[in-house]
Amino acid sequence: MKEERFAAPEGAFTRQVQIRFSHCDPAGIVYFPHYFNMFNGLIEDWYTEELGVNYAELVLHDQHGFPFVHIETDFKIPSRMGEVLDLTLLIERIGRSSLTLVIVGHHDGVERLRARTVTAMMSLASRRSVELPANLRQAFDTYAAKTAAG
Amino acid sequence: MKEERFAAPEGAFTRQVQIRFSHCDPAGIVYFPHYFNMFNGLIEDWYTEELGVNYAELVLHDQHGFPFVHIETDFKIPSRMGEVLDLTLLIERIGRSSLTLVIVGHHDGVERLRARTVTAMMSLASRRSVELPANLRQAFDTYAAKTAAG
Amino acid sequence: MKEERFAAPEGAFTRQVQIRFSHCDPAGIVYFPHYFNMFNGLIEDWYTEELGVNYAELVLHDQHGFPFVHIETDFKIPSRMGEVLDLTLLIERIGRSSLTLVIVGHHDGVERLRARTVTAMMSLASRRSVELPANLRQAFDTYAAKTAAG
Amino acid sequence: MKEERFAAPEGAFTRQVQIRFSHCDPAGIVYFPHYFNMFNGLIEDWYTEELGVNYAELVLHDQHGFPFVHIETDFKIPSRMGEVLDLTLLIERIGRSSLTLVIVGHHDGVERLRARTVTAMMSLASRRSVELPANLRQAFDTYAAKTAAG
Repeated sequence: MKEERFAAPEGAFTRQVQIRFSHCDPAGIVYFPHYFNMFNGLIEDWYTEELGVNYAELVLHDQHGFPFVHIETDFKIPSRMGEVLDLTLLIERIGRSSLTLVIVGHHDGVERLRARTVTAMMSLASRRSVELPANLRQAFDTYAAKTAAG
Repeated sequence: MKEERFAAPEGAFTRQVQIRFSHCDPAGIVYFPHYFNMFNGLIEDWYTEELGVNYAELVLHDQHGFPFVHIETDFKIPSRMGEVLDLTLLIERIGRSSLTLVIVGHHDGVERLRARTVTAMMSLASRRSVELPANLRQAFDTYAAKTAAG
Repeated sequence: MKEERFAAPEGAFTRQVQIRFSHCDPAGIVYFPHYFNMFNGLIEDWYTEELGVNYAELVLHDQHGFPFVHIETDFKIPSRMGEVLDLTLLIERIGRSSLTLVIVGHHDGVERLRARTVTAMMSLASRRSVELPANLRQAFDTYAAKTAAG
Repeated sequence: MKEERFAAPEGAFTRQVQIRFSHCDPAGIVYFPHYFNMFNGLIEDWYTEELGVNYAELVLHDQHGFPFVHIETDFKIPSRMGEVLDLTLLIERIGRSSLTLVIVGHHDGVERLRARTVTAMMSLASRRSVELPANLRQAFDTYAAKTAAG
């Protein structure tokens, strides 16, 4: 497979993940379910650090959940213990209650994996999807505009 | 979302997974990365129990890996602690070195999630994809024919 | 380290765990936190299958938790992918709200690991420990008597 | 249980762990096996960042493993999503091939959990324990001296 370059748009939210012994399988590379854990952590940090919306409070206080409705991932280049993987989060689509994100894993400017995830906002009490509240929608819009490629 | 019925084709490989406390998140439902772990376990059991090819030996003795190249999943209905989820494995496509599987999670005849996974056979030594050996290809063909819907 | 033999007392609750690819680390052996997951699953199955007390209902319906207060484990012999590990559960002590269990992992009559765990019964609402209810205490007593070495 | 204060000795290696959704169980608190994962990550970071010994190279290049021989943990106060847990690592004993560490989890000066772990240095090739090399022993001695309580 030929190498694909990746450069995050300016202003995009990127976090580094240290690849640890605990992530790796007998083949010495990241066991793939761990990536989904990393994605979930990235999304939490994005809410809290970038959007200024405390993710833990959304769940614990506001009693909202953000279950994954769909996820698709292309695993292009494996990662190994001791490496650092950069994860960048981009918005693809803002729906009524759903949010479609793209998460790109990259290292030294080369794309290693790419995921598209659809989460839906849900009330933990009613177990039904709820419309995105105005403050979240506004925060998503702002981030989407800021990171839209020129 | 309206309920979708699922009936496994006759002869299809199905295993039951007990949903445990350890699978569930603060919302009381399975935290989604655990599903990928379940898929991997299902595929291991399918090799060993259905195809008669010892998966551990493929890895440890033959030094072959089966990394995921692509995976996509629709999560339709959540599962809760104490429930039993049925996982059924079907073949979608047999490539030169790749295998495309469909895994359906269902409960009481209702589909709860559906995944499509592409794995590629790889040499752990050369870290390159290798052509599926004749015995595996034969086993895949037999299973695909057996489970093809009439 | 010299080999230690283990024979489960008659009537003891033993379950087999298939050691999977997902359990193993780059050294090819079980990554130790997975054992604690296995212990938790064993305890769940013991409640439900041996004691006749549905563990999921204890948590979800009765709103009781069983947090670990203490756990200690000796890891004696590693386990590898493709092996089957036998886990046997024994009662060491029944307290007012606590239960001390011994879990022995063994294979072909040889002890591989041994854990001692103390769990306390807790109300999820009050977050305080609660006295073991009579039916649980009775079930624990019966199991302890049944598995006491002659 | 009465609160126990904890103050890390000066110079002690402490890292913060963000408690995430993925760590928490249906009772809303950290599912205990995740703590062992955190301990392993802390030890890796301690080797690399504090001792100046690249942990990934020890494993991948030097082909050494550090399996846990024994671990015991007291869980005193649970941690919840959104909290930050401080983990401090101290040396208790330096053996011929083994290292006994104490790891304390604390928050706002209050001890939440305390573990004692014994790891042994092992050759991945021979699968036997090996004597600690001089550079590691020296690094351990220096750290132990530096963090010894006055």
